[in-house]
Amino acid sequence: MKTENKDSMKQRKRNIKLLISYDGGNYHGFQRQNNSLAVQNILEKKLEILFGDTIEMAASGRTDAGVHAYGQVVNFFTDGTIPIDRVVRAANSLLPNDIVVKAADEVDFDFSARHSAISKIYIYRIQQGEIPDPFLRNYTWYIRSKLNLAAIQEALAYVVGEHDFSAFQATGSVPMLPIRTIYEATCEQKGSIIEFSFFGNGFLYHMVRNMVGTLVNVGIGKTTPIRFKEIMDGKDRKKAGATAPAQGLYLKQVNY
Amino acid sequence: MKTENKDSMKQRKRNIKLLISYDGGNYHGFQRQNNSLAVQNILEKKLEILFGDTIEMAASGRTDAGVHAYGQVVNFFTDGTIPIDRVVRAANSLLPNDIVVKAADEVDFDFSARHSAISKIYIYRIQQGEIPDPFLRNYTWYIRSKLNLAAIQEALAYVVGEHDFSAFQATGSVPMLPIRTIYEATCEQKGSIIEFSFFGNGFLYHMVRNMVGTLVNVGIGKTTPIRFKEIMDGKDRKKAGATAPAQGLYLKQVNY
Repeated sequence: MKTENKDSMKQRKRNIKLLISYDGGNYHGFQRQNNSLAVQNILEKKLEILFGDTIEMAASGRTDAGVHAYGQVVNFFTDGTIPIDRVVRAANSLLPNDIVVKAADEVDFDFSARHSAISKIYIYRIQQGEIPDPFLRNYTWYIRSKLNLAAIQEALAYVVGEHDFSAFQATGSVPMLPIRTIYEATCEQKGSIIEFSFFGNGFLYHMVRNMVGTLVNVGIGKTTPIRFKEIMDGKDRKKAGATAPAQGLYLKQVNY
Repeated sequence: MKTENKDSMKQRKRNIKLLISYDGGNYHGFQRQNNSLAVQNILEKKLEILFGDTIEMAASGRTDAGVHAYGQVVNFFTDGTIPIDRVVRAANSLLPNDIVVKAADEVDFDFSARHSAISKIYIYRIQQGEIPDPFLRNYTWYIRSKLNLAAIQEALAYVVGEHDFSAFQATGSVPMLPIRTIYEATCEQKGSIIEFSFFGNGFLYHMVRNMVGTLVNVGIGKTTPIRFKEIMDGKDRKKAGATAPAQGLYLKQVNY
């Protein structure tokens, strides 16, 4: 069985970092699966052809089934000898066209896509209007009701800073320290699209989608900005809103 | 077997016109098929539920498998009594989310989506760049090579006016008078997207895709603008370029 970047892998000659974009619509998430198709399965299989080596990659984090990425980052150790400036084009010629390598770099051995990450940006897109756009169905959450943007922005202000985000952690997820710092949380209208952006030092499992689900309740007037803060402070997942659908979420950027 | 708007249908009480948008990616074109899924099959089936009546619609024209529409127009005769202002929302609640009714109107009996159309606008989108965008794969033709836009625009000027477009007609298509008038033909860069627009009184089968395929040959320097004109004037399909892929083409608007 494969393990992620186990120590024996570090005997290899190179540490390769890739910047990846993918449309998550056809995959059961990023992380390698035994019985279903994940982005990582495809990437490792194709990169093994390219590098002539077994590849066990680590990623900045997993993304769920249906979630997209503009800037996922992975790394892996290899003895493969392909010049680094040929990797992008060669990888893209092997990969299906819903997974794209945007950049490849050879990095120091102490770089880990997962452990070296210091912050991330996620965006979430809602499409709001009377008539849904068929071209956005896999890339946004469609909401017919008009949303009160000012109320959402008021609630978002409470998200910024260091908080215990237990209220927005997926129920049944592996227990982890629920304290995270959000540096910036915004929501703006771009035509029929309402785009949220969350910039933080880390995110709990389902945290963005659970926050957006609760913020939409604020936007439709089902709850208030102050009540949003109380829900967050209450640390009880059952008080928050429903999980927003996966297809509106994008891992935009990972910072190192 | 169903026929399009046969005379007996005109005994019915209402003539309904719909403006439709669809993502053609999952369908074998617009026109009703017996053995595969077409947009028309879905529309008629769902509208029959809504109107409580058999529905045989006529469209402004067919679109091929994989081709998209922002503004397809259809009409049908019905005795169904649903108020016209409820049709859009009710239809969209029944339709899959890749087919959307944007507007519904009750029109005079002499209106035919097909025969009353006086002009159409098609657009075609190319994505050009070193790194393909995975989110555009089903909505553009991806071309790595840089295209000479000035040369394409020079060739496009020859398209405007009344011409015999036999050179760009699909081989093996039903013979039809190959004279069409193009009022406007443009090509502009919008970021990584190169967008063609063709406004004309009618289009032969595969005409836009065959023109775009030949214009891309101009753009990559494989042929010249003058040679493009000669190909058009030569009326020989075999001299023109390959048919551009379906997923870049959109029926944007039909004028009546």
